[in-house]
Amino acid sequence: MHAVDVTTPGGHYPIHIAPGRLDLLAQTIPADATSIVLVTNPTIDSLMGQRVHSVLSQTGKKIIRISLPDGEAFKTIETLDLIFDAMLEAKLDRRTVMVALGGGVIGDVVGFAAATYMRGVRFVQVPTTLLAQVDSSVGGKTAVNHPRGKNMIGAFYQPVAVEIDTDVLNTLPERELSAGLAEVIKYGLIMDADFFAWCEKNVNGLRARHPELLATAIRRSCEFKAYVVSEDERETGMRAYLNLGHTFGHAIEAGLGYGEWLHGEAVGCGLLMAADLSAEVFGFARADVARVRDLVQAIGCPTVAPRLGGIEQWVSLMLGDKKSEAGEIQFILMPRLGEAVRTKADPALVAQVIARNTV
Amino acid sequence: MHAVDVTTPGGHYPIHIAPGRLDLLAQTIPADATSIVLVTNPTIDSLMGQRVHSVLSQTGKKIIRISLPDGEAFKTIETLDLIFDAMLEAKLDRRTVMVALGGGVIGDVVGFAAATYMRGVRFVQVPTTLLAQVDSSVGGKTAVNHPRGKNMIGAFYQPVAVEIDTDVLNTLPERELSAGLAEVIKYGLIMDADFFAWCEKNVNGLRARHPELLATAIRRSCEFKAYVVSEDERETGMRAYLNLGHTFGHAIEAGLGYGEWLHGEAVGCGLLMAADLSAEVFGFARADVARVRDLVQAIGCPTVAPRLGGIEQWVSLMLGDKKSEAGEIQFILMPRLGEAVRTKADPALVAQVIARNTV
Repeated sequence: MHAVDVTTPGGHYPIHIAPGRLDLLAQTIPADATSIVLVTNPTIDSLMGQRVHSVLSQTGKKIIRISLPDGEAFKTIETLDLIFDAMLEAKLDRRTVMVALGGGVIGDVVGFAAATYMRGVRFVQVPTTLLAQVDSSVGGKTAVNHPRGKNMIGAFYQPVAVEIDTDVLNTLPERELSAGLAEVIKYGLIMDADFFAWCEKNVNGLRARHPELLATAIRRSCEFKAYVVSEDERETGMRAYLNLGHTFGHAIEAGLGYGEWLHGEAVGCGLLMAADLSAEVFGFARADVARVRDLVQAIGCPTVAPRLGGIEQWVSLMLGDKKSEAGEIQFILMPRLGEAVRTKADPALVAQVIARNTV
Repeated sequence: MHAVDVTTPGGHYPIHIAPGRLDLLAQTIPADATSIVLVTNPTIDSLMGQRVHSVLSQTGKKIIRISLPDGEAFKTIETLDLIFDAMLEAKLDRRTVMVALGGGVIGDVVGFAAATYMRGVRFVQVPTTLLAQVDSSVGGKTAVNHPRGKNMIGAFYQPVAVEIDTDVLNTLPERELSAGLAEVIKYGLIMDADFFAWCEKNVNGLRARHPELLATAIRRSCEFKAYVVSEDERETGMRAYLNLGHTFGHAIEAGLGYGEWLHGEAVGCGLLMAADLSAEVFGFARADVARVRDLVQAIGCPTVAPRLGGIEQWVSLMLGDKKSEAGEIQFILMPRLGEAVRTKADPALVAQVIARNTV
């Protein structure tokens, strides 16, 4: 088993990564829990809901099951209210423990519900997509979307544990595997050129779902993320580097309507645009831009973004991202491969990069 | 000026208490704030909204004003969304600072909005009722109500400062003054019999709004509360003592529909019921029950509760309170005046107390 420890001002907790972790979930429920709320969506529920329910039943505790509508479009305050309503109807108290079984949407919504139900109850993350395993389940960011922007309402709130069963990736759709790999290669780009090279070398094995390669990629990704959030829980400094590619990516997602592209697909394309802008701003090597393009393509993500309403709409969408401050777009860019900085950028260069990478 | 320091795991901040503090509000806005969101309700807005706006304008920062519908009935997720919508429309970033100008409802809603807007922005509490000044503005509890229960959705989130201008109490309606005094005498009951005796001695002066008596009562109350929340931010132990009278009080509020009785009125009546139950369970002196009754009456709060749907409905409403755990009602009771404990209670004794104190 791989294990990673996460330490933040908001709490300390383990990430466990291994095949078969689902069968050990009962161990992660604190002994003093009064009840368990198992939250998932219909897709995951049909694949593994009953099995997880049976495992949790070993605790002897009352279990409430909630199935949320599937997809980013339902990552809303209204969906939160479905959870609150079910929990309040069942008269669950402050010592209930929530289990988020699903991808990033489930993790974010359940995490925020846990952060705010009776001002905070404990929860366990059980991410079932590669994207959630390497990114959203680690670090305590929880949120729902608002009609005016993605992840605008949320909280920093840490789980009591993250349980990653690599077996669940066997049933993951191809597109979602690719989307998850985009976040994996991002860690190489911002922190470790050697890991980026490891990804280049092993991209075919990763896409073929070689179990040990996936487990290694997940552990390394969780280590990078755990290191960053340990240093900076609330994204005042280094944590912002994790947003490499996200400013462009958010524009794609918001411009097309959430759910059209997967988040990881938009980030994958955004990584390439960030590399291109890094070349313009910092002289990031053009040969490395080509490596980024090749790897984004090799993992199966799009390498060309939609034109949307043109440059002006792109800029407006990027300004609406919550990483922007006082009307200025903040970019994460790379002076060289394996290193990130936060910076503003000349609007003319940004416009060039958008024009060059959209159709 | 009176000043009290509050230290919790979630932050450290000052409470300032003095006549004329409103005129110094610009000083409390951090220099790096990008904008200010002034949230109030129509009643307070007409009394002092323009004046506070002018004071805040001294900072030279962009100011957004939001007026929320008045009253407990609007302490909802829908009202939160009004705030989010206005802030997102104005494209306010994470360095905005919110100012909660109003009573407990404004403080709770704005605090929760601040806790969750972009996962947390800074806010200043400017409580304008006695109840908010001595209770809800201190300690970082923020929340909205849910149709199934009061304060069910919220967060522990600390303000950067609490600014109490005692002059604003001059326009406070009589009923609200009485409701605030209920929370004041509560501190004496749970922590300091001498302070309870001070309240008995000065009750007429307090009701006549003698400025120095009110300032002293507020400072002492804030000191008591700051001490308790410093020890126990998340209400796992000692902080629960602050709920003396609240289990009964919540049943009254929920049973009549929120807003029929003021929260402090329900607590005042609840203090008396808790004293009565303390006499049954712990032998709390009957003479002291009489003192509690006399003082609750002297501050102008009701001393008889509504019968509602009878004992069963009372118990059901008290079970729905979030301080109950696993189907058992937790009471705060007094072994003697000035001392509190958390305990279960024999349902037959609870039923007697409800029967005896309701019509």
